[in-house]
Amino acid sequence: MKKTFTLILSALLSANLLQAQDSLAIRKFYDEALVNGKAYENLRYLCKNIGPRLSGSAGAQKAVEWSKKLMEGYGFDKVYLQEVMVPHWVRGAKETAFIIDSKNRIAVPIAALGMSVATPKDGITANIIEVRSLKELEALGESVIKGKIVFFNRPFDPRFIETGAAYGTAGDQRFMGPAVAAKYGAVGCIVRSLTEIIDDYPHTGATLADPGTKLIPAAAISTKAADKLSNMLRLRKLPLIKFYFKQSCQLLPDVLSYNVVGELTGTEHPNKFITVGGHLDSWDLAEGAHDDGTGVMQSAEVLRLFKATGYRPKNSVRAVFFMNEENGHKGGTKYAELAAQNKEEHIAAIETDEGGFTPRGFSFSDVSKDFIKKVNDNWKSTLEPYEVDQLTIGGAGTDIEPMKGKVPGVVLIGFRPDSQRYFDLHHSAKDVFENVNKRELQLGAAGIAALIYLIDQHGL
Amino acid sequence: MKKTFTLILSALLSANLLQAQDSLAIRKFYDEALVNGKAYENLRYLCKNIGPRLSGSAGAQKAVEWSKKLMEGYGFDKVYLQEVMVPHWVRGAKETAFIIDSKNRIAVPIAALGMSVATPKDGITANIIEVRSLKELEALGESVIKGKIVFFNRPFDPRFIETGAAYGTAGDQRFMGPAVAAKYGAVGCIVRSLTEIIDDYPHTGATLADPGTKLIPAAAISTKAADKLSNMLRLRKLPLIKFYFKQSCQLLPDVLSYNVVGELTGTEHPNKFITVGGHLDSWDLAEGAHDDGTGVMQSAEVLRLFKATGYRPKNSVRAVFFMNEENGHKGGTKYAELAAQNKEEHIAAIETDEGGFTPRGFSFSDVSKDFIKKVNDNWKSTLEPYEVDQLTIGGAGTDIEPMKGKVPGVVLIGFRPDSQRYFDLHHSAKDVFENVNKRELQLGAAGIAALIYLIDQHGL
Repeated sequence: MKKTFTLILSALLSANLLQAQDSLAIRKFYDEALVNGKAYENLRYLCKNIGPRLSGSAGAQKAVEWSKKLMEGYGFDKVYLQEVMVPHWVRGAKETAFIIDSKNRIAVPIAALGMSVATPKDGITANIIEVRSLKELEALGESVIKGKIVFFNRPFDPRFIETGAAYGTAGDQRFMGPAVAAKYGAVGCIVRSLTEIIDDYPHTGATLADPGTKLIPAAAISTKAADKLSNMLRLRKLPLIKFYFKQSCQLLPDVLSYNVVGELTGTEHPNKFITVGGHLDSWDLAEGAHDDGTGVMQSAEVLRLFKATGYRPKNSVRAVFFMNEENGHKGGTKYAELAAQNKEEHIAAIETDEGGFTPRGFSFSDVSKDFIKKVNDNWKSTLEPYEVDQLTIGGAGTDIEPMKGKVPGVVLIGFRPDSQRYFDLHHSAKDVFENVNKRELQLGAAGIAALIYLIDQHGL
Repeated sequence: MKKTFTLILSALLSANLLQAQDSLAIRKFYDEALVNGKAYENLRYLCKNIGPRLSGSAGAQKAVEWSKKLMEGYGFDKVYLQEVMVPHWVRGAKETAFIIDSKNRIAVPIAALGMSVATPKDGITANIIEVRSLKELEALGESVIKGKIVFFNRPFDPRFIETGAAYGTAGDQRFMGPAVAAKYGAVGCIVRSLTEIIDDYPHTGATLADPGTKLIPAAAISTKAADKLSNMLRLRKLPLIKFYFKQSCQLLPDVLSYNVVGELTGTEHPNKFITVGGHLDSWDLAEGAHDDGTGVMQSAEVLRLFKATGYRPKNSVRAVFFMNEENGHKGGTKYAELAAQNKEEHIAAIETDEGGFTPRGFSFSDVSKDFIKKVNDNWKSTLEPYEVDQLTIGGAGTDIEPMKGKVPGVVLIGFRPDSQRYFDLHHSAKDVFENVNKRELQLGAAGIAALIYLIDQHGL
């Protein structure tokens, strides 16, 4: 009896000791991130000195070169590039668009959707028809749609608590809408910007342009202009309202680009990997601050925090700046292919691509209820003081997604910051450095470091 | 055995049924807040059409009158004013300040601390001495301090996860610093703005001005200027650096003002009360958007959400717009006095005065561990889908604090939004409507409505 008691006691003590040790290490990451953090100033450089960096652009190439130097400067054990061919889409001249009724031409702000094609040189004028869904479009059919511009105008549903869910349910309009409209003979497509906020900024983003898809010119319209257009269509007879737009975007030949990888080599298992990454490319309308400058700068910061606090991970930890998340996912796909080809063993991959806002927690993709319960039982109380303790089942991220299937055993995890402000800025001219908060960004880096530390120490 | 089983089953079923009913009601509050919410547009009016509203000012009086009409317009069962005499401090002309070394006069941004006195008409010039704490000041003593301007320059500690804790530990410099410096013969006092952000905005706030306190002119200096001044003091000999400042603030005779109260009368217990409130007064440097326009607009919105969704509370629920939180706490004190005088029974009081940011949860003041465990066991899972489920022991708020002692049995609760951005803006010219996010604000109103509903239905 006494022996059993002693055994239990010593197990409890060692469990407590372990937890105390974890808490101490994590506290150090936070202190370093909040007192000496570099992610914010690095982000400033990326946004202000490099700026927009769509795949294939000069900005993207500059960002690759600078990122490599940045990680080399931090003295990570390995820093290297992974070659990847990426699409090279360019916007061309600023778009113009008008709502035309019997008397007036009302200028409205639009932005060509990524991967879309140009209008004829002088633009397109056509009758415009509003639909709220793909289903509604299909029900109208070719007889109604042919020769018209289709206007997708289903707003964000504000009732979702997490805005990502609203984006998810509205997103088919932008991604599939133009391709489906083309099938029914539309000559152009205008899509309400994927945001709840009502303002004058169009939000771009990729639209489907697979080989074999018939392409028509497609653009995002600001929510304010979408409401105006919708009201005009409702109040007047259809043929009286026409829409004009002109854009000169084009898809150039693929370009050689790179993922940028930094690594701290594991002291015990150098051939087992934990990845943390975001994407280095960004849309061209702004600085790609929250999407996803914050994610890449947090990823490098995680490794820097480990080095600065003297934490040497048992397993190899990689920061990956993926290329081409926005319009092709080529970088993420390449990373997974190379991992499979090199028969690498991956424990976990964490993606940070939901903005640099106050951390909430992490969502684990395709895990069982038992798995997530164990994660909560083991780690929730350790993460609670840092308010990054929402550990749920959910999506992980586009860049690590291709590892699923290709890399057996890897657990895919998404970093979850607060979602409320993300889509106010996402893919629009407002996604600039000034809209990132230093503490929120640094707390994210420390929170991800904490999770990786726990995985590195205790496995998954 | 079978009977016991049936009993347990029916108890479980009825518990589940109750919880389902709660979830349904709460979902309705959120839908109404997110789809038809009025708090944001009301806040716009308060900020843009009324603006600054320090106690005793014309803005404060306008805000009282407009608030009463607003709640009357919503058809609350009772809307009335509570008279309260408040201090009337005015800033006067914009302050000027210079760091003076042997060659230059460098202009620096300052703002008189609330309740402070003016400098002589031509300002004060004196040697300036930097201290980091009251203790350090006291150790230096009168021989060193006499005739000088004391410069309190202890920065926010960035390591706290919640920024309120950093405010708490730095705040004595502003509140007590000038009074203690005066005791040792200082002729003026300059206090580093209470914020972590490094910029050019001074953050004002009240300083101690009790009867019997010796008063010297005291002002907040921007963090950027504080760093500059500190560097100059470090690099050069003391007598070469002087400081000049001029301010013309003054305390006028007390003014009659008002708390504004709206009430939904309870269907079962009209004489039992649940209060939700924020403060209507604001500092004069901006629009008092997050401090505390968001709090009052959320408080009115809670009652509006109940009415709009058809929820008739069993107990009376009051929205209270307190006057004079910033420089006297007279409104909160009066509310508690009247409640005691009228022998009102109060179940709970919830204060929202930490900004209109994304909700995190609620902190319960002076409750036992058993109490908070029960609150969590009962309600955490119901609040979790709304991410407002941090239910902790902690502070409640300045305006409801006076109920402690005066009103037996009341549970004091603080609404806790995310704290990261609050002190970037707090008491500075940056606290404007544009820095409030609509969804974050509305989620707060719905979250508070949810908690009040649970308290109203199930007690505390």
